[in-house]
Amino acid sequence: MSFNNNVATKFPNLKPRGPGGEALLNAERAKTSFDIKELSKFMYTEEWLIKMNNVLQVISNEPAFDKSNRYYQSRTDKIATGLWKDKRMIELAREHMWDEQDTRLANFLYDQSTPFSLHYGMFIPTLMSQTTNEQKKLFLEPALKHKIIGCYAQTELGHGSNVQGLETTATYIPETNEFEIHSPTLTASKWWIGGLGKAANHAIVMARLITDGKDLGPHPFCVQIRSLEDHRPLHGITVGDIGPKFGFNATDNGFIMFDHYRVPHVSFLAKYSQVKPSTGEYSKPPNAKLSYGTMVYVRANIVMGVRYALAKATTIAIRYSTIRQQFVDAANPKKWDNQVIETPVLDYTMQQYRLLPIVASAYACFFTGREMLRLYDLNQEAMQQGNFNLLADLHASSSGLKSLTTTMAVESIEECRRACGGHGYSNFSGLGQFYQDYLPNVTWEGDNYILTQQTARYLLKTFRNVVAGKAEPSEYNQTITYLTQYLENPTSKCPATKPTDFLNPELILSAFGFRAAFGIAKLAEQIDRHGRTWNSMLVEISRISKAHCQFMLVRNFVVTLQNDPSLSTPQFKPIVNVLKTLAYLFALHTMEKELSEFLLSGYLSPEQSAMLKEQVISLLEQVRPQAVGLVDAFALPDYYLHSALGRYDGRVYESMTKMAEAEPLNHTLVVDGYEEYIKPFIHQNKDKTAPSKL
Amino acid sequence: MSFNNNVATKFPNLKPRGPGGEALLNAERAKTSFDIKELSKFMYTEEWLIKMNNVLQVISNEPAFDKSNRYYQSRTDKIATGLWKDKRMIELAREHMWDEQDTRLANFLYDQSTPFSLHYGMFIPTLMSQTTNEQKKLFLEPALKHKIIGCYAQTELGHGSNVQGLETTATYIPETNEFEIHSPTLTASKWWIGGLGKAANHAIVMARLITDGKDLGPHPFCVQIRSLEDHRPLHGITVGDIGPKFGFNATDNGFIMFDHYRVPHVSFLAKYSQVKPSTGEYSKPPNAKLSYGTMVYVRANIVMGVRYALAKATTIAIRYSTIRQQFVDAANPKKWDNQVIETPVLDYTMQQYRLLPIVASAYACFFTGREMLRLYDLNQEAMQQGNFNLLADLHASSSGLKSLTTTMAVESIEECRRACGGHGYSNFSGLGQFYQDYLPNVTWEGDNYILTQQTARYLLKTFRNVVAGKAEPSEYNQTITYLTQYLENPTSKCPATKPTDFLNPELILSAFGFRAAFGIAKLAEQIDRHGRTWNSMLVEISRISKAHCQFMLVRNFVVTLQNDPSLSTPQFKPIVNVLKTLAYLFALHTMEKELSEFLLSGYLSPEQSAMLKEQVISLLEQVRPQAVGLVDAFALPDYYLHSALGRYDGRVYESMTKMAEAEPLNHTLVVDGYEEYIKPFIHQNKDKTAPSKL
Repeated sequence: MSFNNNVATKFPNLKPRGPGGEALLNAERAKTSFDIKELSKFMYTEEWLIKMNNVLQVISNEPAFDKSNRYYQSRTDKIATGLWKDKRMIELAREHMWDEQDTRLANFLYDQSTPFSLHYGMFIPTLMSQTTNEQKKLFLEPALKHKIIGCYAQTELGHGSNVQGLETTATYIPETNEFEIHSPTLTASKWWIGGLGKAANHAIVMARLITDGKDLGPHPFCVQIRSLEDHRPLHGITVGDIGPKFGFNATDNGFIMFDHYRVPHVSFLAKYSQVKPSTGEYSKPPNAKLSYGTMVYVRANIVMGVRYALAKATTIAIRYSTIRQQFVDAANPKKWDNQVIETPVLDYTMQQYRLLPIVASAYACFFTGREMLRLYDLNQEAMQQGNFNLLADLHASSSGLKSLTTTMAVESIEECRRACGGHGYSNFSGLGQFYQDYLPNVTWEGDNYILTQQTARYLLKTFRNVVAGKAEPSEYNQTITYLTQYLENPTSKCPATKPTDFLNPELILSAFGFRAAFGIAKLAEQIDRHGRTWNSMLVEISRISKAHCQFMLVRNFVVTLQNDPSLSTPQFKPIVNVLKTLAYLFALHTMEKELSEFLLSGYLSPEQSAMLKEQVISLLEQVRPQAVGLVDAFALPDYYLHSALGRYDGRVYESMTKMAEAEPLNHTLVVDGYEEYIKPFIHQNKDKTAPSKL
Repeated sequence: MSFNNNVATKFPNLKPRGPGGEALLNAERAKTSFDIKELSKFMYTEEWLIKMNNVLQVISNEPAFDKSNRYYQSRTDKIATGLWKDKRMIELAREHMWDEQDTRLANFLYDQSTPFSLHYGMFIPTLMSQTTNEQKKLFLEPALKHKIIGCYAQTELGHGSNVQGLETTATYIPETNEFEIHSPTLTASKWWIGGLGKAANHAIVMARLITDGKDLGPHPFCVQIRSLEDHRPLHGITVGDIGPKFGFNATDNGFIMFDHYRVPHVSFLAKYSQVKPSTGEYSKPPNAKLSYGTMVYVRANIVMGVRYALAKATTIAIRYSTIRQQFVDAANPKKWDNQVIETPVLDYTMQQYRLLPIVASAYACFFTGREMLRLYDLNQEAMQQGNFNLLADLHASSSGLKSLTTTMAVESIEECRRACGGHGYSNFSGLGQFYQDYLPNVTWEGDNYILTQQTARYLLKTFRNVVAGKAEPSEYNQTITYLTQYLENPTSKCPATKPTDFLNPELILSAFGFRAAFGIAKLAEQIDRHGRTWNSMLVEISRISKAHCQFMLVRNFVVTLQNDPSLSTPQFKPIVNVLKTLAYLFALHTMEKELSEFLLSGYLSPEQSAMLKEQVISLLEQVRPQAVGLVDAFALPDYYLHSALGRYDGRVYESMTKMAEAEPLNHTLVVDGYEEYIKPFIHQNKDKTAPSKL
C-alpha cells in the first residue's frame, strides 16, 4: 500500500496521535462550572444570537462570501473578490429584507474590509450629517441606491493627524459660482483613502476653503471623480491605488490629485457653514460641542470592537493551547486513559500568564463598552436639555479608552499568535492576517499617542479645579472623586497583609485611583511649579492617560458585577463567580504589569507586591479550568474565525493538512521553474561525454 | 494644462511642500559631532565595507536580484523569483570567484530567504559535521556542486521544541540492511521544513531509530525524496508546501510523510553513533558537550544579526522622523529659512523615547555579539586543552541572550514601523514584510520562552554553588562575581543623590548585578525552601534570565568603551563620547523599563527613580542631534533597505509616489470587475423605459 497517488497534496487518511482535539476540548468543556449559553445571552442577548445565526446560514452558503481562498489570494484577486462580495451583499440585503443590524452582522462575519466599506462607513454618514436638503437629494439618495459610490478623502501624503495642515485648496470663483479644487504640491496628494483607488466615483474631499482671498481652513466638498458612463477618471484628476499594505489588502486605498478641477457651488457641504453664491461671503458653523457626542459614540463602539478582537484571538489561542501538547511536566504528568501524555501547553503557568489575562481583558472591554454606550445615551439626553456637565469627562475618557484598548488589542492579538508556537506563524492560524488587518485601529479615529494628550489635558484641568475647590465629586465623574480622595490623603497606603486581601473591590479601586491621581499631581507639579514644557513631559502625559483609563476599565468591570440587577438572580451565581475571578485577574494582573507606578506612588510596598504576584498566579490556577468555557461563551462561529487552530471541534491537525492541500503551489507536482532553475544543476554532467567525477 | 494623460498612475511633476527630505537630512548630518565613516569602519572594518560595496555593485545590476517587484508579488511569483535568484547566485559566485563572505554578503543584501537557503544553512553543515568519509563522498560532494539539493526535516506537525517527542520512525531491517522510514500518524508529518515544499530532492530526516526492538530516540538520516530525473516525489512519499505564512513566503516550507519507505544503511549519519550492518547493534555517541560550543557560535551570530535588524529598522524610522513633520510645537517652533514649519516628529520627546533607545540597543547588540564571539574563540581553545570551565556560563548566557535580543528585535521593528505613523503601514516603508520575515527568529534555534529555562537552571545552580562556597569569582564568570557581591551585602543601596549620578558605569553595573542576584536568590528561596514547583515559577524564571542577560548587555557595552584599546586614540574621542552617551541611554532606559524589579530589590528608592527618569529624558536630548549620524554609521545601502521612507537622500514622497505608480492595480485605468460588480448599480435605471426617480 502506498499513499503516493501522484497527487502530491493528498494526505493519507491517518489520525493525529493521542486523544485528539475533539476529545480534549470536550473534556475541557465538561469542567466548566457555569452555563456557557447563558453567559453568551447575557453579553449579546438571545435575539442578537438568533439574528447572527440566521445571517450566518445565508452567507455561509454564498460563493461570494466563501473564505476558503482567503489566505492564498494575490492583491488583485482580493480586490476582485471584494467587489463581488460587495455586489452580492446589496442583493442579499434586498432578497432577505435585512435590516441594518443584519447587514452589519454579515460584514462582521465576513471580517474583511472591501472596496465599498467606506461608502457605508464614511461617505453616507457624512452626507447624512453635513448636507442641506438639496444636497441630500443630489448625493445621499443616489448613494443609498448605489447609483453613486463614494469615499472620504481627508489624509494627504504629507499630512495626517494635523488636519489644519492639509494643503488641498478649494477656491471660490464668483464669476462662475464654482469652486476650483487644486493640489499645489506632491505632499498635497490625498492618500490612504479607502475605496478611492479603484471603486469610487465620488469623494468627500476635505480642502482648504478660500474665498475672497481668505483661507478658512479645511471644509468638506462632495466631488465626482470618475465617469458614470465608463468609470474613467475625469479630466483634471489623477487617481489610483496606493499599493500593497501590511494588511487591509482587499481594500483599494487610493490617492488623488486635482489640477484646477472645477466643481459646482452645490458641492460644498453646507449644513453647518455656507458660502453665499456670487458674493462668496462665508458664514461660520455653530458651536462644535455637539459633535463631541458622536465621537464618544464612535469610540464606545471601537471599545466594543476591541472585545470582539480579543475574543477572536483568545478563542483561537485558548482552544489550541488545550490541544497542543509539549513535554511531560514531571512534577504533574498529564494522564489520559491511564497513559501519560505530553502536557497541554495551557497547563504551563507561563502560557496561562500570557493568555488568561487577555481573556479577562476581553470581558473588561465588554463591560466598559457597555458603560460608555449607557453614558453616551445619558449625555445625549442631558445635552438636549442644555446640560453639558457630563460631556468633558466622557469625551476625555473615551479618547484615552480608545487609545488604551486598541493598543491592548494589537498587542494581545500578536501575543496570542506567538503563544500558538510555530503554527501561529502559519496563515491558517487565522491570527496573522487578523493582526495586520486590525492594526489601523491604533491610527484612525485619532492616533493613539495624540489621543492621550487630549485625555491628559482634561485630567490636569480637573486636578487644578479640584485643588481650587471648583469641582465636586459626583456619580458621573469618577475623576473628580478619585482626585478628591487623593488630595484628602496623599500618603494613604494599601492595607493588604496577605495575598487574598487583594480580592477586594474597594482595595482595588482605591489602588487604581490613588496611582492615577498621584501621576496627575506629579505632572501638574512639573508643569505648573517647575515650568516644564508640554513636549518634555509627553512620556508622563501618556502614562497618566493610561493610568486613568485602566482605572475606568477596572471600575466598570468590578462595579457592574456588584450592582447589575440582571446578574443578581440565583441561577446567575456560577456566572458571576467566574466573572468576579476574571475581574480580579484583570485588575491584579494590570497592577502587576504597571507595578513600578504603584510602588512609586508609595501606595504599595515591596512586600505587598510579592503578595500581589502570588495572588495573580493563584487566580490563573482558578481561571484555568474555565478557560475553554469562557471563550466558547463569546459564541464566535468557525466561519468567522476561519482558523485551523481555533475550530470548535478541535480538529486542528486535520484542518491544517486540508488547508495545505489547497495551497496553489501544490496543484502541480513539479514546481514552475524546475526546468530553468533546478534541473541544469542536477543534470549538469549528463550532457557531457566525460564520466561523472562522483 | 492637465496632468491626466489617461495613465491613471502617472503623478504630476510636483515637489513636496517645504524644505524637502534631502535638505532636512543634510541639515541633520551637519549637526553630527563625530566622523560617521570612522564609526562604520570601527564596527565593520574597512575591508568588509569595501567587500560589501563590491558585491553590491554586482547584484544591484542583476535582474535576478532586482527588488522592485518585491512588494507586489503573489506567493507563486515569489517562489519562482527565489529559484531564479538561487540559480543566478551560484553562477555569480563562480563568475566573480566569490569567497564565502562575499556570498554571505550577497544574501544579506538581497535580504529574503529563498528555496535553496536551507541547503546552505542546514543541509550542508549537517553533512559536514555528522557524516563518515564514505557519506561525505556520497552526499556532501554532490551537495556542494548542487547535483543534489537538500533540506533539514526535524519539526513535525504535532511536535516542535520537544525533540524527544518526534514520531517518525526509522526501523533497521537486518535482512536487507535497510532502514524503513515511516510516519505512523498525521501528527508525525514533518512540517515547516524550509526548501522541502518544492525545491529539495534530498532531506536530512530526524527519525526515531529502532533496532533490535529498542527505540533509541531521534537520529539523522540522509534520504532522497524526489527523482533526480524529473523531480517527481518518489514512491512512498507524500510531499508538498505547507501553504502561506505570516512571512517567509519566498521559501517553500514543506511537509513530508513516509509510508514504509526504505533507505539503504548508508543513509544513517554515522559519525557519532553507528548501527552495525546485519546485527543492527547500536553504539552510542560520545559526550555531547563539544556541540554546545557550536550553539554558542550560532547564537553569537544571531545576536550580531539582531544588530542588523535593529540597524535597519532604526535607519528607516530615524531618517523618516526627521523628514515627517506634524503640528507646530508652540513652545519651540521650528524655523526654516526664517519661516515657521511644522515640527519634525523626532523633535517630540515621545518619538525620541520610542526610537532612540532602539538605536542604543543596536549598538549594545553589536558590542555583546562581538564579546560572545571572542569568548567563543577563547572557549574553543580552552576545550581543546580539556578545560571546560568557561562552557557552562557561556552556553547559559548565550541561550538567554538569544532569547532576549531576538525578542527585543521583533518588538523594536514593530515599534519602528508604528513610529512611522500611517506610512509605516504601507509596504513601501520596508518595515512590514521585514517584521514578518524576522519573526521566526524568536522560535528557531531554541524557542525564546524555553531558552530562558536553560539560563535560569544555570543561574540557580551557580547561586547554590556560591552559597555553598564552591564557586570563585573570575574575569570570565561575571555571574559568580555579581552573586558573590550580592551575598556579601544583600541590603546594599544605590548611592545616587542627583540625576547625573546615574552617569556612572560602576553604579550602573552594581544596580544591574544586584537586581539580577536578588531575583535569583528569591527564586532559589521559593524552590529550595518553600518547595514551589518549577512550573509554578515559570514567570519568575523568565524574569531572572532576562535580568541576567540585561546585565550582560549593559556590561559588554559599558566595559568595552572603557577598555577597548582601539578606541583610546585621540581621534576616536568624539566617537567614544557619543557611544558613552548611548551606553548610558541604553542602561538607564532599560532600568526604567524594568523599574519595578529595581524597586522591589530595595536597591533603588522612589526618589532615585524620579531622578533616573529625569536623566533618561536628558540623555534623549543629548542623543537627538546625533541620531541621523548614528544610523548613517550602520552603512546600510538603499538597495538593502528597499524603503521609501528610509532612503539616504530623503526623497520620501517622490519615492512613495513612484512605488505607487508600479502597483499592478494601476496598470489598468478601469478596475477588473467594474463591468460585473459596479456598473449594474450605476446604470441601474438606464435600461428601463421609466424615467429616473432622482
